[in-house]
Amino acid sequence: MAQKMVYFFGGGKADGNEKMKNLLGGKGANLAEMAGHPKLKLPVPPGFTFTTDVCTYYYENKKKYPKELDGQVMKALAGVEKIMGKKLGDPVNPLLVSVRSGARKSMPGMMETVLNVGLTSKTIPGMIKQTGGNERFVYDAYRRLIMMYSDVVMEKAAGVEPKEDMGIRKQLEKLMDVMKKSKGVKLDTELSAEDLKSLCDSFKKKVKEVLGKEFPDNHLDQMWGGVSAVFSSWNGKRAVSYRRIEKIPDEWGTAVNVQAMVFGNMGDDSATGVAFTRNPGNGDPRFYGEYLVNAQGEDVVAGTRTPAPINAASQSDHNLDLVTLEKGFPKLYKELFNIQKRLEKHYRDMQDIEFTIEKGTLYMLQCRIGKRNGPAAVKMATDMWKEKLITTEEAIMRVSPEQLDELLHPIVDPKAEKLTKPLAKGLPAGPGGASGMIVFNSADAVAWAEKGKKVILVREETNPEDIEGMRAAQAILTARGGMTSHAALVARGWGKCCVVGCSDLHIDAATKTIKKDDVVLKEGDWVTLNGTKGAVYVGKLPMVDASEEGSVLADFLTICDKVRTLGVRTNGETPADAKKARFFGAEGIGLFRIEHMFYGEGSDQALFLLRKMIMSNTLEERKTALAELYPYMKSDIKGTLDAMAGFPVTIRLIDPPLHEFVPHDEAKLKALAGSLKIDMSNLAKRADSLRESNPMMGHRGVRLGVTYPEITEMQAMAIIESAAELMKEGKKVFPEIMIPVVCSVAEVNDQMAIIKRVHAEINKKFGKKVPLMIGTMIEIPRAALVAGKIAETAEFFSFGTNDLTQMTFGFSRDDIGGFLPSYLEKKLLSEDPFQSIDLEGVGELITIGIERGRKTNKKLKIGICGEHGGDPASIAFCYKAGMNYVSCSPFRVPIARLAAARAVVEGKK
Amino acid sequence: MAQKMVYFFGGGKADGNEKMKNLLGGKGANLAEMAGHPKLKLPVPPGFTFTTDVCTYYYENKKKYPKELDGQVMKALAGVEKIMGKKLGDPVNPLLVSVRSGARKSMPGMMETVLNVGLTSKTIPGMIKQTGGNERFVYDAYRRLIMMYSDVVMEKAAGVEPKEDMGIRKQLEKLMDVMKKSKGVKLDTELSAEDLKSLCDSFKKKVKEVLGKEFPDNHLDQMWGGVSAVFSSWNGKRAVSYRRIEKIPDEWGTAVNVQAMVFGNMGDDSATGVAFTRNPGNGDPRFYGEYLVNAQGEDVVAGTRTPAPINAASQSDHNLDLVTLEKGFPKLYKELFNIQKRLEKHYRDMQDIEFTIEKGTLYMLQCRIGKRNGPAAVKMATDMWKEKLITTEEAIMRVSPEQLDELLHPIVDPKAEKLTKPLAKGLPAGPGGASGMIVFNSADAVAWAEKGKKVILVREETNPEDIEGMRAAQAILTARGGMTSHAALVARGWGKCCVVGCSDLHIDAATKTIKKDDVVLKEGDWVTLNGTKGAVYVGKLPMVDASEEGSVLADFLTICDKVRTLGVRTNGETPADAKKARFFGAEGIGLFRIEHMFYGEGSDQALFLLRKMIMSNTLEERKTALAELYPYMKSDIKGTLDAMAGFPVTIRLIDPPLHEFVPHDEAKLKALAGSLKIDMSNLAKRADSLRESNPMMGHRGVRLGVTYPEITEMQAMAIIESAAELMKEGKKVFPEIMIPVVCSVAEVNDQMAIIKRVHAEINKKFGKKVPLMIGTMIEIPRAALVAGKIAETAEFFSFGTNDLTQMTFGFSRDDIGGFLPSYLEKKLLSEDPFQSIDLEGVGELITIGIERGRKTNKKLKIGICGEHGGDPASIAFCYKAGMNYVSCSPFRVPIARLAAARAVVEGKK
Repeated sequence: MAQKMVYFFGGGKADGNEKMKNLLGGKGANLAEMAGHPKLKLPVPPGFTFTTDVCTYYYENKKKYPKELDGQVMKALAGVEKIMGKKLGDPVNPLLVSVRSGARKSMPGMMETVLNVGLTSKTIPGMIKQTGGNERFVYDAYRRLIMMYSDVVMEKAAGVEPKEDMGIRKQLEKLMDVMKKSKGVKLDTELSAEDLKSLCDSFKKKVKEVLGKEFPDNHLDQMWGGVSAVFSSWNGKRAVSYRRIEKIPDEWGTAVNVQAMVFGNMGDDSATGVAFTRNPGNGDPRFYGEYLVNAQGEDVVAGTRTPAPINAASQSDHNLDLVTLEKGFPKLYKELFNIQKRLEKHYRDMQDIEFTIEKGTLYMLQCRIGKRNGPAAVKMATDMWKEKLITTEEAIMRVSPEQLDELLHPIVDPKAEKLTKPLAKGLPAGPGGASGMIVFNSADAVAWAEKGKKVILVREETNPEDIEGMRAAQAILTARGGMTSHAALVARGWGKCCVVGCSDLHIDAATKTIKKDDVVLKEGDWVTLNGTKGAVYVGKLPMVDASEEGSVLADFLTICDKVRTLGVRTNGETPADAKKARFFGAEGIGLFRIEHMFYGEGSDQALFLLRKMIMSNTLEERKTALAELYPYMKSDIKGTLDAMAGFPVTIRLIDPPLHEFVPHDEAKLKALAGSLKIDMSNLAKRADSLRESNPMMGHRGVRLGVTYPEITEMQAMAIIESAAELMKEGKKVFPEIMIPVVCSVAEVNDQMAIIKRVHAEINKKFGKKVPLMIGTMIEIPRAALVAGKIAETAEFFSFGTNDLTQMTFGFSRDDIGGFLPSYLEKKLLSEDPFQSIDLEGVGELITIGIERGRKTNKKLKIGICGEHGGDPASIAFCYKAGMNYVSCSPFRVPIARLAAARAVVEGKK
Repeated sequence: MAQKMVYFFGGGKADGNEKMKNLLGGKGANLAEMAGHPKLKLPVPPGFTFTTDVCTYYYENKKKYPKELDGQVMKALAGVEKIMGKKLGDPVNPLLVSVRSGARKSMPGMMETVLNVGLTSKTIPGMIKQTGGNERFVYDAYRRLIMMYSDVVMEKAAGVEPKEDMGIRKQLEKLMDVMKKSKGVKLDTELSAEDLKSLCDSFKKKVKEVLGKEFPDNHLDQMWGGVSAVFSSWNGKRAVSYRRIEKIPDEWGTAVNVQAMVFGNMGDDSATGVAFTRNPGNGDPRFYGEYLVNAQGEDVVAGTRTPAPINAASQSDHNLDLVTLEKGFPKLYKELFNIQKRLEKHYRDMQDIEFTIEKGTLYMLQCRIGKRNGPAAVKMATDMWKEKLITTEEAIMRVSPEQLDELLHPIVDPKAEKLTKPLAKGLPAGPGGASGMIVFNSADAVAWAEKGKKVILVREETNPEDIEGMRAAQAILTARGGMTSHAALVARGWGKCCVVGCSDLHIDAATKTIKKDDVVLKEGDWVTLNGTKGAVYVGKLPMVDASEEGSVLADFLTICDKVRTLGVRTNGETPADAKKARFFGAEGIGLFRIEHMFYGEGSDQALFLLRKMIMSNTLEERKTALAELYPYMKSDIKGTLDAMAGFPVTIRLIDPPLHEFVPHDEAKLKALAGSLKIDMSNLAKRADSLRESNPMMGHRGVRLGVTYPEITEMQAMAIIESAAELMKEGKKVFPEIMIPVVCSVAEVNDQMAIIKRVHAEINKKFGKKVPLMIGTMIEIPRAALVAGKIAETAEFFSFGTNDLTQMTFGFSRDDIGGFLPSYLEKKLLSEDPFQSIDLEGVGELITIGIERGRKTNKKLKIGICGEHGGDPASIAFCYKAGMNYVSCSPFRVPIARLAAARAVVEGKK
């Protein structure tokens, strides 16, 4: 491995740049960019980056390094020493360095860090001298080093199993607690230099005692130990678990950054902070951040002290009393403000930056694309597009469908909220609302959620070990930490409702209780969170849709529509569905399921008549029932056609699961028998004859229309007559009749003959030509194969991917519970094929269907109306496959519009 | 239409020949061949043939003829007149002609014939003179002409609806009966010339009265009327119905043959007969036939008189007392014998010939390939092949799979038959045995059969109107008619059991009874027929397989095997299955369904343990049940491997319909609960959890093995350990483990890992390498699509076309009863896709699967094990698709061997 393995940065120069993320990791590449780019040359503490190739080599060679590495490191280190005017291990003017991970994609808190590397018995005196005799500072740094190093390097990376579940860090913390108690103090900061010095001695003894090894007293040993620990942490449990969720490949590896330490905790002229060029919680375009005076970076992220706002725009109820950076350090704030401006312009995206002020000097420690929640992503993309900072394509790619989905999540009903006093207020760390039963640890959250319970994970503060529980919970509530704490960071990334820093609450994980004043909540009690406001309520408050709020969403989707070519329709059966979907931008109905009108409120009489029709045994009985049913059916169809006027409405001929419509209720059975004028035993016999072994592949869809043509006839009448009447009223209607469960062109022809006859009759009766298209579902594998023939007759295809997936896999969706979990767990399937189209199998059938259909009928209109029509990955596939439109539930319409636009942009790449 | 429309034959010359069947019909082409071929030049009465093109023209032009036709006819007629030295309509020496149909494919009795055309008031005196004053003969011919002509031409072809269901022919017959009664005679032949003359007058009056038209007295009017009537009869009800059954296209049309009449009823030196160059009932290679002295051809076919055997080889118990042609007309017999020898050699196939002797002169009226039943077809093909008359390919193509099937039909158990006295004996007109309830007309036969009843159609004699009922019946029994009667002819064509000419029985269709002596059978009573012997028994006798009899079958299949390339295996689960299949020539087992060992006799304890395994809730419970089940499973597997030693045995891992194995019986449930040590409510809960909405697409096949790997492990052990033990005994065994319901390679890999581990363990334990192949069913559409990937791992594929058809169509085989009949009736499907592979849809998936599978794995072994594996059309497809073998039930093995051989021959065409 003779290549360059170490990349230097600092002093206005850098070996790497921002484009080298795969090699240098995100952090390393950005440090190089900030330090070395001619337009930036920002004050970055110098350092160097071990490439991800080293990580790969490390794992492929039994955790050994290539022999050329040492030389490259020593050269880079010399460069750092030169700039800093200090030397690692130098007794007089010692350099301290940090060792941090930095993967291609940010994995916040998932890997290890070691700070203050270089403090040894040899360098401590020099360090004290260099800090103007600040012995307390140095020993505090030393005890932090021992705690961190013994934990990260000597225990975790070495694979030492902690005894009795008590890791070395906890043991050292216990020693510190004993010390604090013996000194009668509460805070670490109250311990004296002497205290800390003696603590360091006890720490080192404890380390030797517990881990059986001396704490290393050599600066290079420390540095290499740190580097190896970071590489090792790539395969730590937390990191692996996070990668699984975020779908980050294991083979990427991490880079490691070794950087000169600067200290924000060198006194009141020092500080450290985290900031965003725009507000990551709502997209507000003003500079936003938090900082702590006399603190190290980890203090901000850990959330142990409540940070101050950097400026007025960052103020909230929670931190209104704290001095802003703008006021406390006006000159440095201005410098920082200018830097962030330049950074955002340079990167053309919102930046998440870390800075430290050491004795009045500003250092930039990190910059990266800032994570944001959905509402913020939409706002920023729209604003930046309006500011002409980004192109239309960029704006579209800045918002993921999942982020858009957050805007469509429920929020706590504002009316109910107005009437309810919150139990407590915290920081609004994740948007939307959520109700759930409280649980106090990650394992419980996972277990309860698996049982189908909705839970809220409540923690004093979260840490990376809580990842799985946070995932499983509806929302997260913590008592400590700020907007950049672990909980806030993770929740924001997932668009999950989250309230942090709710310090009024006394959360006791041991007794599983939350106390505030005289209110005590126990495990399993319901709470409701408003993550947009940061409020916590006792009990279960009603939720409403957030989707109808805000024109930003509408503006953003208008940007998407500039690029989108795929039509977006909705699935719906009522005028209300149609109106809602139009609001969201639907361009018609792609699936109106006639049988759905028999579900839900107010459908009792219609359902009764449907049952009567189903239980009819003779043509005459059936015709009577159909005639009675007719007005009900027509009314829903007409209302929906009206509400969707101007757009096409695809109405699918009835495809009911017959046996499901047989009533079980004695009274209803009697009424039915009475209406059919038959006795109960006869009715039971008829009901029994409707029972099928495999109803999914039984007497359904077009098969019903073939055996009972009068059912098709009645539906065609209801549809076409409704349209004719609306046309008379001057409305523009475009009904499309869709034949379901087709497997041959012969079926289509059979049904088409009936529909065309009815069509001609009604045209004649009304003296108008009702525009009408007749097409088919393609949901049976055979239909896809013989699509060429079907398209000779059918005017449109709509892929019913739910059934197509069922038949292609031979998976009954109702019965997969017995084996699908095993399949996903064993990775026999990468995904639930009912969530996202299986490209290999189902996808090929769709492709075949489209190719063959279009070959015989160039004008064939093709869409999808299965639930996949609202799934972004599936929409991308539909675009590539050449469909004309997708159809999904009203709430998925915005997502579909975005996904369709993104598909175009991605297609151009 | 300026082409040649009329083809002359006669006098050693002919315009046409045997190859022109499409144009001249079978009869016309063969008449031309017999008359004109240089090697034949047989004594055929001269005549001419209207081509089928004329028929087409006739239907396309509102039943008009092309104008050039008349000239061509008159020219041909002149040719006939010249040879015969007689003229049509000539008062002195009149020519009489017959007008007969003749389609491309024989449709016996389905179309009309008019004889004695040319008899008019003008020609009758001349005719009497020419026949040496045989007035009786002439008037008998005349009354036949009137009866036939008024019926066929004036009533049927003219589309006259008979009044009160009494057609003109019946009315004329009534007149004749009245005449006979008044004269005190019983037979037509007892009527005098005077009687007949007066009858002719009454007939003509009646015709005028009933049909409102004079009977035509012009010879040309008669001829053209006859020709039109024959063309019209192509679309008669009977003909259309027959074409439907035989799949003859409507557009073929018929030819019409006009031929000089010769008379077998000119006295005792005249005769007429039908003969076969070999026995069509059993294939006996001796000349075989029947004749009647002083009779017309129709008398033989109609079965109104029992014909005499032409020679000793044609004698039976039934006609032993009658004088053979060989004895009665030794010279003419010799001439006929030589002619038939030449004909068979010329045509290289068994010929069905009609001859007439007019006053000591032999005329050949017809020859055609003779229909034969299955046993005869097999015998003839084998014999002719041995005689080197035909090639191997021809021999194979001479037997249809349906004919072979007849040999495999059940026969009456000879032991039971020995102990039972027959009610009556008749002629053995259709092979095999059959039991059924007696019905007395075609409509009842159809109606009863539709209700699932087995019926025997009993008729005095059958006629073409009985076709549907004959089809529906298990067998046919008639009191009259011989081996060439309508019933015998049709039954032989279908390979249906049939006994004819059972004249001891008094069959009364009006009272629906059969009487013999004091035995009276009523409608619905059971009878049993032995169609091979011609015996009728009262009641239901046991049946046995005919298949194990006769080495002819074995010889014939050996011929097939010379050409066949496709392997033939069997589906079976017991040593008995294996032995039976080996007897039939199976080359291994293609499908051993483990779950089948739990059905049927002696499986109680194994079934109990299977249930216990299924109802187990924990791994431990399941492992216990599996361990108990192990010896049962192994015993069946080992026995079958042993019985099939030397050949591969494909054992499919268990694919049980879980819920079907849950007992319903209280006692069994209790025993199960006891064995599982759980209470009944718990058991009920477990049983309930096994219920699925669509079990066909549920938790089955490989999905069971994925969720419960221990089940796969146990089966692999049973299979491989059995094999190892047999190897130790010196047996050659080739187990193949097949994974069912696969839809991805990941499933295969998952199961293969288990099987390979077990394999390695057992190899080690026994110190032998058990030969083992591991493959998959391809029965899920997705599996066919991803076959390329599956074949990377799988060593063989076996197409499970039952399930593949279910999923490809979305047809649940158990539930198609509700719609499939409508589909077939409306012709939305040409065939039940579970009977014969749907080439368009399922076939394409199979083709895709094979192509992709072989692309990644050149050595991939491919077969089929669905029920289609025994269907000849499907086997032909499997051959073309490139499979290695088919697997079917033991009884279908011979059919599969033949079908596979035929596929090769057809593939060469």
